[in-house]
Parts: sequence; structure tokens; C-alpha cells
Amino acid sequence: MRPLAQPASDSIELVSVLHALGDPVRLELVRRAWATPGLTCSADGLSVPASTLTNHWRILREAGVVSMTVDGRHRRIQLRAEDLRARFPGLLDLILGIDTES
Amino acid sequence: MRPLAQPASDSIELVSVLHALGDPVRLELVRRAWATPGLTCSADGLSVPASTLTNHWRILREAGVVSMTVDGRHRRIQLRAEDLRARFPGLLDLILGIDTES
Repeated sequence: MRPLAQPASDSIELVSVLHALGDPVRLELVRRAWATPGLTCSADGLSVPASTLTNHWRILREAGVVSMTVDGRHRRIQLRAEDLRARFPGLLDLILGIDTES
Repeated sequence: MRPLAQPASDSIELVSVLHALGDPVRLELVRRAWATPGLTCSADGLSVPASTLTNHWRILREAGVVSMTVDGRHRRIQLRAEDLRARFPGLLDLILGIDTES
């Protein structure tokens, strides 16, 4: 499995993370990545073109919110929960908590 | 002083707040609004055209991050700290804390 490029833990920037999370589709993708470790990039139940979805995942990866690895024909997603919690304590739990309730 | 339209406290949406905060200029404006209650919309030290700045303040106001009142020729800004703390506990302090340190 080949990992795609991502920022190091201590290079994750707040403004990039907020930007990445500040979109309803990307917030939903983060929820899904949290609920399903090793998720693929599929769009089940999201009315979003595949190319748009790819772009959303890229923004999340480049911001440091998720890791992606190439696994044959799939890309596997992992939420970088530990890195995000270490860097911005409370942010991820706030977002997952609020999102889960709604 | 005439208040400009803004969402009610309980209508402030997480994704809109994250979007509003996910921009380096807007994050700096939020810091300034926090440091200086009753701030005007001036751009001191920011290399941003006035029209762009007006747009940034509008996005912050429409997301529920700041209140704006028309005071003669000025617009006065107030960070909606109490509303944001009630709605998304920890978010504002995380952002102001991290921002202040950097």
C-alpha cells in the first residue's frame, strides 16, 4: 500500500484544517472516515460527481485531516484523529460530536 | 446604531462558522475583533483591498461569527463570543488560543 503525500503532524495548519472542514460534503466525508476506518473514496448516498469527490478528499488530505493510501485499485482513507487531537485539542471531538447529533 | 442582519444564536451553523474561519485574513479579523471590541472595518496592516475586506466581514457576519452595527459613517464589529461559546463549546477558545500563540 503506497501512502499519498500529506503534511507532517507538526505542519498541520489551523486555517487549512478549518477551510477543509468548512464545507458540508467534506464534513460528511470526515464523519464517514471516522465511522469507517479504511474507507474507500466511494460516494454512496452523496449526490456529488466522482471528480468533485476526489477533489474533496484531496483537500482533506493536503490539510492533514485524512491519510490516503493506494491499495490496488482503491484508495483507503484514515482520519488523522491522533494528529489532529495532538495539534488542536478539542477541535475534532467538537466537530464529530456536533455532527453526530444533528 | 443600526444592527445589520445576522443569524439568531440558535441558527448559527457549524459548517458556516468553519468556512468563515477557514481563511487567513478572516482568522486575523476575528483575532482583531476579539482584541478590540467595537472595532471598525479598517484594514490597518492588512494588504487587502477595502472591497475584499468588506466581503470578509460580511462572510463572518452572515456565518454568525461577528455582529455589525452602523454607527454614522462607521461599521462597528463585535465578536459573538458568547453565542459561539454556547453553540460550539471550545471552538472559539481553541482558535483564539492557537492564534494568539503563533
